[in-house]
Amino acid sequence: MVRGRITGLAVSDVRFPTSLGHHGSDAMHPDPDYSAAYVVIETDARDGLKGYGLTFTLGKGTEVVVCAVNALSIHVVNKDLEEIVSDFRGFYRQLTSDGQLRWIGPEKGAVHLATAAVLNAVWDLWAKQEGKDPKQLLSCIDFRYITDALTEEEACGKSSFCQDRSPYSLSCFLFQWDYSSSRALLFKYSKMAYLGRRKELCTEALKDGWTRFKVKVGANLPDDIRRCRLIREMIGPDKTLMLDANQRWEVKEAIEWVTKLAEFKPLWIEEPTSPDDILGHAAISKALAPLGIGVATGEQCHNRVIFKQLLQAKALSYLQIDSCRLGSVNENLSVLLMAKKFQIPVCPHAGGVGLCELVQHLIIFDYISVSGSLENRMCEYVDHLHEHFKYPAIIKKASYVPPQDAGYSTEMKEESARKYQFPQGEVWQKILSKP
Amino acid sequence: MVRGRITGLAVSDVRFPTSLGHHGSDAMHPDPDYSAAYVVIETDARDGLKGYGLTFTLGKGTEVVVCAVNALSIHVVNKDLEEIVSDFRGFYRQLTSDGQLRWIGPEKGAVHLATAAVLNAVWDLWAKQEGKDPKQLLSCIDFRYITDALTEEEACGKSSFCQDRSPYSLSCFLFQWDYSSSRALLFKYSKMAYLGRRKELCTEALKDGWTRFKVKVGANLPDDIRRCRLIREMIGPDKTLMLDANQRWEVKEAIEWVTKLAEFKPLWIEEPTSPDDILGHAAISKALAPLGIGVATGEQCHNRVIFKQLLQAKALSYLQIDSCRLGSVNENLSVLLMAKKFQIPVCPHAGGVGLCELVQHLIIFDYISVSGSLENRMCEYVDHLHEHFKYPAIIKKASYVPPQDAGYSTEMKEESARKYQFPQGEVWQKILSKP
Repeated sequence: MVRGRITGLAVSDVRFPTSLGHHGSDAMHPDPDYSAAYVVIETDARDGLKGYGLTFTLGKGTEVVVCAVNALSIHVVNKDLEEIVSDFRGFYRQLTSDGQLRWIGPEKGAVHLATAAVLNAVWDLWAKQEGKDPKQLLSCIDFRYITDALTEEEACGKSSFCQDRSPYSLSCFLFQWDYSSSRALLFKYSKMAYLGRRKELCTEALKDGWTRFKVKVGANLPDDIRRCRLIREMIGPDKTLMLDANQRWEVKEAIEWVTKLAEFKPLWIEEPTSPDDILGHAAISKALAPLGIGVATGEQCHNRVIFKQLLQAKALSYLQIDSCRLGSVNENLSVLLMAKKFQIPVCPHAGGVGLCELVQHLIIFDYISVSGSLENRMCEYVDHLHEHFKYPAIIKKASYVPPQDAGYSTEMKEESARKYQFPQGEVWQKILSKP
Repeated sequence: MVRGRITGLAVSDVRFPTSLGHHGSDAMHPDPDYSAAYVVIETDARDGLKGYGLTFTLGKGTEVVVCAVNALSIHVVNKDLEEIVSDFRGFYRQLTSDGQLRWIGPEKGAVHLATAAVLNAVWDLWAKQEGKDPKQLLSCIDFRYITDALTEEEACGKSSFCQDRSPYSLSCFLFQWDYSSSRALLFKYSKMAYLGRRKELCTEALKDGWTRFKVKVGANLPDDIRRCRLIREMIGPDKTLMLDANQRWEVKEAIEWVTKLAEFKPLWIEEPTSPDDILGHAAISKALAPLGIGVATGEQCHNRVIFKQLLQAKALSYLQIDSCRLGSVNENLSVLLMAKKFQIPVCPHAGGVGLCELVQHLIIFDYISVSGSLENRMCEYVDHLHEHFKYPAIIKKASYVPPQDAGYSTEMKEESARKYQFPQGEVWQKILSKP
């Protein structure tokens, strides 16, 4: 039973000073402080349950998202949870289509990241409260602007494309997860390693059972060639190599550059250019297909309309959803279903703060209830900052282990949320007091 | 001579309670309070000049953009103006590619609106300080991600597409405007009327010399047919009728709906669907072309990469730039030049708060230095809130009159900025104190 009226929504600016150690940096983001706008919602249900949600950020700008969360809170506070989830699509649209707030998006940028944080908290709370009828899942999706690619009827399995495996075939997405029966199936979701320049990292990763390796490219071609050669030699011909350009290139430049790396047989080139450039990605995909190299993108694609077009234009071969940039589970469901229809594997973006904790739920749902396949599917994993979460993602034999606890795994340890709060937390007080 | 170090950047949340009179409302934005994040920059140059900039918003969410402006201010304060304008492209990229802030865009949503407000203020200050060498104009554009559509060389006029009229052919964009010689040319930039349901409005507009009329559609087909018939009968067959759907429709729905309005010979359908849907707009354009109806969009298109694709995909026949959603003059220049290359007329979005004041500079530049044509070109005008500006746009015979004062016409009257500040200003204190 869903219960309670939401009596409070608190949001805080939690930042981890990762730039001090240059963790997670890339060519476009040289000094990120991995951060989160962290949302906690409370109800009057007297069951002690709270909903925790977040969106991932890189330090500066978190305060902007916090401000946007506060602006959205009028649509959340004083609502009955029952009222929200019984018309979750309507609630989604209320958040994304507020007649005034909409202008500063719509459905993109800070206000959409804020929507994700709020909705992630609602899903966490809902999931904690009960196992629900999965038939409600489709009613959480706002199909606005994507019906030319996917209609609700098709998604229901009334149409042919997903009759083999209706989204209704499993009743436990996020809820009451049956760990014992599913673990074996999911072990194949391998993690990928971010490789720096050091050879040792690769050796160590191979020893730990890693099978897929990602190399950052785009800054310097001779150096890229040198590193790709090194890694390919170390991992041998059978393991998977992927390239990530973090949006460095123009369209033609991407094609020329990656062509020169083709000899190392990469599976994909990730984020070759602007995440907004659907036609650019299509041109790159077309040019690289004869070389056997796919295009992957999505971590900065801002909503379902962009993903729809990437699929329609055959602009990618691997689709990388993000649990915090899209409007939570609601919008990610629509993308999973479209990917199924267009037969493109979903390989979520993760890492950051809490992204692995969140997307593990989405890959499991995709596998069990939508795609029914592990072929060419994988989920990013970075071994970083999990210690701050109450229910951290667990990796065994280089694979995600299905989460056992109810909820969306988004709750931080109280001490972490307090210590790392920006700028009041003790960690930041110490850093900021230095001359 | 450009002079001075920027010593301060102040931003305020200025809101006009337009929702009380339902001004400017449409199907997607039923109750806007026309507002602005309003930026003032000061220097130590002792010339008394300040730069004023703004971005238009709809009320709620302005505080989010204000927060984003504050986040950007570290890139502005303590910079020499000379340093900024001598590498304006670099400065633009610094604002849009901050390694941490970038994540909450990139180049979209609240942080890009904030970029526009800041850069609008810089252009205002620069323009006030001096008439500058127009050869510098191209060096303000960041061509990143659009070189497959337009290179700097092409924009320079070295390539064929703009040899007839190089962007360098006039030296007075924003600066030292020669009013007497240009007014006649520009009178043809007619304004468009927003028409409500009342017949009298139309009669009055015709009497005032208006030649182009826009009707909001999309909520109710029989009502749309009734109103379009009424207006077409009143304005006769020779005047121009345009339709605006404010993103109401799915792709197929747009085609079907507009087909049923074709008998009224509209010039265009504006914003038929999501502003992110390039392929959707292309499908609608293709379907409506045989009916002689073009597609117009742009007021919520968030950056040059979206406009590039709309042009590449033949998705529009009329391109509606926005002076406050794109990254100020810098990014709008890139769009004007691409529109020239693809031979699509630019018809800016205006109205709002200060948009008419800003875009009048852009249409003049487009006409004199880029397109060299008035054919099918027009600029929106709404007779609203101009009284709050120190240098309001002036309309004569239903046409914009070129501005005579140096600067970007963005300065508000001090009293207005003070009274309408949210929530401290006296206007809001009065409204908010009501039970």
